Amino acid sequence: MPRARLLEWKTMSKFLSSKYGKLIPYTPGEQPKERKYNKLNTNESPFPPSAKAIAKAQEAAKKLELYCDPECKKLTEALAGLCGVDYNQILCTNGSDEILNFAFMAFCDSEHPALFPDITYGFYSVFAELNGVPYEEIPLRDDFTVNVEDYIGVNKTIFIANPNAPTGIALTLDEIERIVSSNPNNVVVIDEAYVDFGAESAIKLIPKYKNLLVTQTFSKSRSMAGARLGFGVGCAELISDLNMVKYSTNPYNVNSMTQAAGIGTLEDEEYTRKNCQSIIENREYTTDALKRLGFSLTESCANFIFVKHPRIGGGELYTKLRERGILVRHFTKQRIKDYNRITVGSREQMDDLIEAISEILEEN
Amino acid sequence: MPRARLLEWKTMSKFLSSKYGKLIPYTPGEQPKERKYNKLNTNESPFPPSAKAIAKAQEAAKKLELYCDPECKKLTEALAGLCGVDYNQILCTNGSDEILNFAFMAFCDSEHPALFPDITYGFYSVFAELNGVPYEEIPLRDDFTVNVEDYIGVNKTIFIANPNAPTGIALTLDEIERIVSSNPNNVVVIDEAYVDFGAESAIKLIPKYKNLLVTQTFSKSRSMAGARLGFGVGCAELISDLNMVKYSTNPYNVNSMTQAAGIGTLEDEEYTRKNCQSIIENREYTTDALKRLGFSLTESCANFIFVKHPRIGGGELYTKLRERGILVRHFTKQRIKDYNRITVGSREQMDDLIEAISEILEEN
Repeated sequence: MPRARLLEWKTMSKFLSSKYGKLIPYTPGEQPKERKYNKLNTNESPFPPSAKAIAKAQEAAKKLELYCDPECKKLTEALAGLCGVDYNQILCTNGSDEILNFAFMAFCDSEHPALFPDITYGFYSVFAELNGVPYEEIPLRDDFTVNVEDYIGVNKTIFIANPNAPTGIALTLDEIERIVSSNPNNVVVIDEAYVDFGAESAIKLIPKYKNLLVTQTFSKSRSMAGARLGFGVGCAELISDLNMVKYSTNPYNVNSMTQAAGIGTLEDEEYTRKNCQSIIENREYTTDALKRLGFSLTESCANFIFVKHPRIGGGELYTKLRERGILVRHFTKQRIKDYNRITVGSREQMDDLIEAISEILEEN
Repeated sequence: MPRARLLEWKTMSKFLSSKYGKLIPYTPGEQPKERKYNKLNTNESPFPPSAKAIAKAQEAAKKLELYCDPECKKLTEALAGLCGVDYNQILCTNGSDEILNFAFMAFCDSEHPALFPDITYGFYSVFAELNGVPYEEIPLRDDFTVNVEDYIGVNKTIFIANPNAPTGIALTLDEIERIVSSNPNNVVVIDEAYVDFGAESAIKLIPKYKNLLVTQTFSKSRSMAGARLGFGVGCAELISDLNMVKYSTNPYNVNSMTQAAGIGTLEDEEYTRKNCQSIIENREYTTDALKRLGFSLTESCANFIFVKHPRIGGGELYTKLRERGILVRHFTKQRIKDYNRITVGSREQMDDLIEAISEILEEN
């Protein structure tokens, strides 16, 4: 992959700063436009956004001539209520990628190197490279679980996706707390993009720990991937640091339609909970079906499953599903090249997937 | 101002990287929520977005569960058409602040220090500080014009707002070309946020110069400040560099509603042109009226005027207008502290302003 990516970026100018000479950007999942796919590759929700979100965004679209509120005041108030924290403990961003980058900017440098698992969200290493931050990747165990001992008292800035991606495996709150409490001189970032599908949020630890930053997104459980809304929760001092970065980067970072949609979504929390419950049921349903077809799966607490079959490689299954109009994610990284990450969608999408996989296995 | 800002950010955590120890964030114009103001402080348009923009954004709001197109393909195609360049010569961003920051990231470092006027968009020095880039500010002449000679063959990465802010004074295309052609080993960024109100765009120079990046925004002439949409135009290599930064920072940087609104706006170019013409007429109308009241004004080609009165200071006029429900911008920087930057809005807003100023002067 690095080679292929480098070729794509081969048109660099002579003006590009040498600090980016080795930077290889993140590869987002495909967003194909040429035909309609059963799209199970980017962990989107199969459900539309809340009707309240749509209505509020549509109303905001009429007043775009005025700048959006750089403080995201109403949205921040609503999130503070949801999370049970103070107003100054929340920061809203243009997707959670933005707050993750802000955290790499604010809390990592040569004296605070970054630390994260070797198999996790692929953007962490890109953020580290972008910001010139030294980093270490700690291998997951053979079963893809995080060995908590590896993160105890390490004196580094730690990034842990919980549940982890693309494995879906979650740490318990006790395990998270052991990591946070043992690193009082470094920030621990818990990236909870997928937390609403079965893991326990570390937000409840925030009153106890000044070094804990929890990030979440509206892209998955709240059906707002296209609107770009993420947020961070931490003690007021950490949020102030991140605000300093935000106001030095892009003060109006969350547009007014997205702020409005976020407020609408939070007024309809029941809808979000119902959708998450459907995804969890569909995940169990799909897991059972794929096990019967001979797959091994990690124990996912997310809106995706991570699957491997003894008779067909990850790359081959990806290609054959694509031919049948189904997009899943395949990673070329050596340790996980036999696997596919498949988004859990609606029951119909899952039945379509299971049928296609059955056919592929019969032909193989 | 530095002191006041530092106090605001005094709650820094002990975890903040020492590289940001002296960073003072940008101060956006006030976005007050407590009462309704005649808002002439942030150069917003008095006109609503195009009806086509609203309709398309509202349609996009229904499908937020899917990620936005990271390439912004349709919008980029439309912009390429508008600018008369190829598809790969355009990059869309989350407001033009984002592409300006990307340019500081990509094209500035210790070997390519930044250079810009002492009186200009206040964010340039913040971007330089944020990115640890050395920079030099060249004083404008006493009449606030740019001395082109100061920028000839300087071997630095140059940022010029044209028209400049907060003065509104524009360079001619010939002057821009002299600067660009004399610095072939450095990128010259022409920030055309206000170009549609009377200056000439440097986009037509792009086929001739590999080192020219032009940035524009939908916030002013296109009534989309709340949607956050900016873009850059340059040779394919420069745009590729900036794309590398984008895909290493936030690949889905422009949300789907904003992409849709941008496309709608570009389908209604006549509306934009008509609105710009109104602003230009209202600018001349207001200029004449304020001159009659004893003000001196720079020759503005933007949607704001930069004004000074012999009998009342900039801070005092700001405060007295605010008491009357009119917000204008006042900068505390020594050289311009006697001035106010006033957005040109609708004829009604201008009459309101002129009346209030007349009253204030009578009382003084």
